[in-house]
Amino acid sequence: MRFETLSVFPQVFAPYLDESIMGRAQRKGVFDFEAFDLRRWTHDRHNTVDDAPFGGGQGMLMKPEPIYEAVDEISSMGEGRPYIVFFSPCGRRYDESCAERLAGEERVLLVCGRYEGMDERAYELADEVFSLGDYVLTGGELAALVVIDSVVRLLPGALGDDMSAKDESFSGSLLEYAQYTRPAEYRGMGVPDVLLSGDHGAVDRWRRRNAIERTALWRPDLLKGADLTPEELAFVREVIQRSNGGGDVDE
Amino acid sequence: MRFETLSVFPQVFAPYLDESIMGRAQRKGVFDFEAFDLRRWTHDRHNTVDDAPFGGGQGMLMKPEPIYEAVDEISSMGEGRPYIVFFSPCGRRYDESCAERLAGEERVLLVCGRYEGMDERAYELADEVFSLGDYVLTGGELAALVVIDSVVRLLPGALGDDMSAKDESFSGSLLEYAQYTRPAEYRGMGVPDVLLSGDHGAVDRWRRRNAIERTALWRPDLLKGADLTPEELAFVREVIQRSNGGGDVDE
Repeated sequence: MRFETLSVFPQVFAPYLDESIMGRAQRKGVFDFEAFDLRRWTHDRHNTVDDAPFGGGQGMLMKPEPIYEAVDEISSMGEGRPYIVFFSPCGRRYDESCAERLAGEERVLLVCGRYEGMDERAYELADEVFSLGDYVLTGGELAALVVIDSVVRLLPGALGDDMSAKDESFSGSLLEYAQYTRPAEYRGMGVPDVLLSGDHGAVDRWRRRNAIERTALWRPDLLKGADLTPEELAFVREVIQRSNGGGDVDE
Repeated sequence: MRFETLSVFPQVFAPYLDESIMGRAQRKGVFDFEAFDLRRWTHDRHNTVDDAPFGGGQGMLMKPEPIYEAVDEISSMGEGRPYIVFFSPCGRRYDESCAERLAGEERVLLVCGRYEGMDERAYELADEVFSLGDYVLTGGELAALVVIDSVVRLLPGALGDDMSAKDESFSGSLLEYAQYTRPAEYRGMGVPDVLLSGDHGAVDRWRRRNAIERTALWRPDLLKGADLTPEELAFVREVIQRSNGGGDVDE
């Protein structure tokens, strides 16, 4: 898979993507990436990419022409047209299902804004506009890194163990169960006995129940998509009732 | 303000934080940061920070001891105890109100996990646990960078213009209005006439109405917190009705 970024700070991508799991995945040929400098598609000696907004207001906007020219030229390079992603608070909330879908693309171009925003006409170029969450960043570069990281870890061969991309929070509809490693006792804090029992069936049952309990407490919205037995649904009601102070629950 | 990170990849922070707005803010003394290497708090010659999970299962977990020892020692350095942030899918959804709150801290320590997760007992150290969104990353480093970027841009002096951190999506309860810059006509696409009119009152009314329209179409959930006049509420209903295909709206 190939990732391309278009940005006025092309130098911020490699230091992350050349390290650790991302670096190893690149060296194994799982993905490659190229960071394009938007200023390459400017035509004045100051390499201007921004201009004042029509109608007045503070701050500068990214001009449409360099973005259009860059996306045109990058798209015509290499094989196949890239799937083009922009970022905006107005976009679709990025989640694991988006990552899974992007992992099926051959080539993704991530266009990163800066300054107060982008001329609205630039978004016409996007196949998809994502929002990372309800917070504001100084630019789209970190959003692009988040997308690349979350997609690459799903690609075959990216993680050491082909199984470990699964069995995580959000791959199913439950948060992940609590996990513990040695020592069994640390600063007065122990580990649930069942995890030390060697009884695999009991461990699986505890983990399933713990995942349901944590999801009911912290992310009850996720339970809509969970496949729960009648007994598990009764447990969910019990957990919610307990966390509400033990009173009756309206059903 | 001071940010500290604790991570097994301390080298990935500076290449982002030394560039652009973050780099300038550091040079102006708006914030400083230090990236600590978790392996400094290991005691074997392989600098082991992970171990297999109790109860079996694939992947490795981060051991509690190096994290506890590191947080203890870092907290005792310098002035004042840091506000300690961990990341987990089980955490509170990070949003602009979290960024605003963190911007009031003197010192924030961001603890970044890796591998399959962290021993559950480590989370006892956290003052707060955040989730960036419903997607999985290979580690917490990008989450820490997102938090630092979103908080620093709110600090006085971080952006060129002290006003420009405001008037953005999520600072209020509406998405931002569409913005345009020169040229007024590009590839057959124009700019709304009112923005070229020089009539500031009309521009303000158009922007308010456009922000309401975009929010109603794309993020109606945000409207709960918006302060709308009766006329604006009627416009919201009209927009929603139109987007539903023009049929009647149940009220």
